Amino acid sequence: MSQPTNDRVTAAVLVIGDEILSGRTQDTNTRDIARYLGVIGVDLAETRTVPDVMDEIVDALNALRSRYDYVITTGGIGPTHDDITADAVAQAFGVELYEHPDIIAMMASRWGGEINAARRRMARIPVGGDMVKNPVQGPPGFTIGNVFTLAGVPQIMRGMLEDVGPRMRGGRPTVSRTVRVEGSGEGVIAAPLEAVAKAHPDMSLGSYPFYGADGYGSNLVLRSRDATQLGDVVIELIAALKAAGIENVAEIEAA
Amino acid sequence: MSQPTNDRVTAAVLVIGDEILSGRTQDTNTRDIARYLGVIGVDLAETRTVPDVMDEIVDALNALRSRYDYVITTGGIGPTHDDITADAVAQAFGVELYEHPDIIAMMASRWGGEINAARRRMARIPVGGDMVKNPVQGPPGFTIGNVFTLAGVPQIMRGMLEDVGPRMRGGRPTVSRTVRVEGSGEGVIAAPLEAVAKAHPDMSLGSYPFYGADGYGSNLVLRSRDATQLGDVVIELIAALKAAGIENVAEIEAA
Repeated sequence: MSQPTNDRVTAAVLVIGDEILSGRTQDTNTRDIARYLGVIGVDLAETRTVPDVMDEIVDALNALRSRYDYVITTGGIGPTHDDITADAVAQAFGVELYEHPDIIAMMASRWGGEINAARRRMARIPVGGDMVKNPVQGPPGFTIGNVFTLAGVPQIMRGMLEDVGPRMRGGRPTVSRTVRVEGSGEGVIAAPLEAVAKAHPDMSLGSYPFYGADGYGSNLVLRSRDATQLGDVVIELIAALKAAGIENVAEIEAA
Repeated sequence: MSQPTNDRVTAAVLVIGDEILSGRTQDTNTRDIARYLGVIGVDLAETRTVPDVMDEIVDALNALRSRYDYVITTGGIGPTHDDITADAVAQAFGVELYEHPDIIAMMASRWGGEINAARRRMARIPVGGDMVKNPVQGPPGFTIGNVFTLAGVPQIMRGMLEDVGPRMRGGRPTVSRTVRVEGSGEGVIAAPLEAVAKAHPDMSLGSYPFYGADGYGSNLVLRSRDATQLGDVVIELIAALKAAGIENVAEIEAA
């Protein structure tokens, strides 16, 4: 990883796949990527899901790559006719695809000499691009410009991510701590929470309600790049909640 | 629900929330909405997730509502300072928010006469809008134009959805069937699959690979608005796979 800076570094995720939009498959890649980026200090700023349709992928990719420091795509890089992500990325960058000889060699060593047309599709990367290692199994992903194109299968996607972080200009990691309130809904929490948030505009303070055995509660997540400040504000927040008559409040380990 | 038509009816989901982008919370609302829409014959065409930032919400909402028949937003309608979805929807439509007297009355009957400022925020809906019923607990969502603004808490969101479908112009429901291949990866399946897909361009045929006990496999999902055609193509696909030497293939109940 290159030298960390104090600048905010942003990324977007572009999920490509009819199976997500039909509701057949629950996307979990976005959350995994968000957490991975958080650790290396890159902020996930937007996500989009588009169908396996060329123009939709190209338009979304061009919008996102011009706006954020990095874009990570997932899905659509297999060998079947609906896997058009490589074609779409190449079109977005205005370049051709070519068969990477190292990928063909990898395939030959795995599947033997005869590589069928469907599998050869997976050896294509855009001209000017580079491979993203696949430590799990099968062909690699690729990167071109500020775009990383990864597999959709979660275990393979996570493996490929390990080769993405070191290529990103990372910011400083964000630290988070969580204060849990049980038995009091957000309507009661809101006033003390807002007072503390307003006193510390340089950190993130979110309220994430749940409905549990004791009725409504909320996890209050404090996030900062300064661990010392964060500790002080956790103490301040708990005190403010208790002063507002909210008794069942304590810091918890974040999920 | 109004009279079904053969036109494609499209929708987008806009998820609003820093907790999704930080990776803290796994979004499941998108999948629930996708499935709900599928049953009533509305195609989910795109999803986006944006942070709790006014301009981001307004820009995404305006892009989506001009492009698709309907937009469903989730999240950011609670009482805390980071709940700005109502403000953003009103700004996108160029209208003001007002306190809906029926919601204030609901709150008064639930929480007693005194309603604090934080809770009053949840009684605001855009001028020209209408309430979306909340059958679970707490204040309603709202709708204005082609936008439906629902809660982020999944059980409440699902409840509110029941009041969304009847307000949509629904198409005919899509029927889906699934053929499961075990022990053969997509590289082997691709050619027969593509041949069948090309022979039936009016239906959707997707390949969703997995990695299981027998190595790679794939669920092949066929989707059509014509159940009779669908049955014929399932038989044709299984025959084509077997003709290509793939033995472990059978129709399964979709997940």
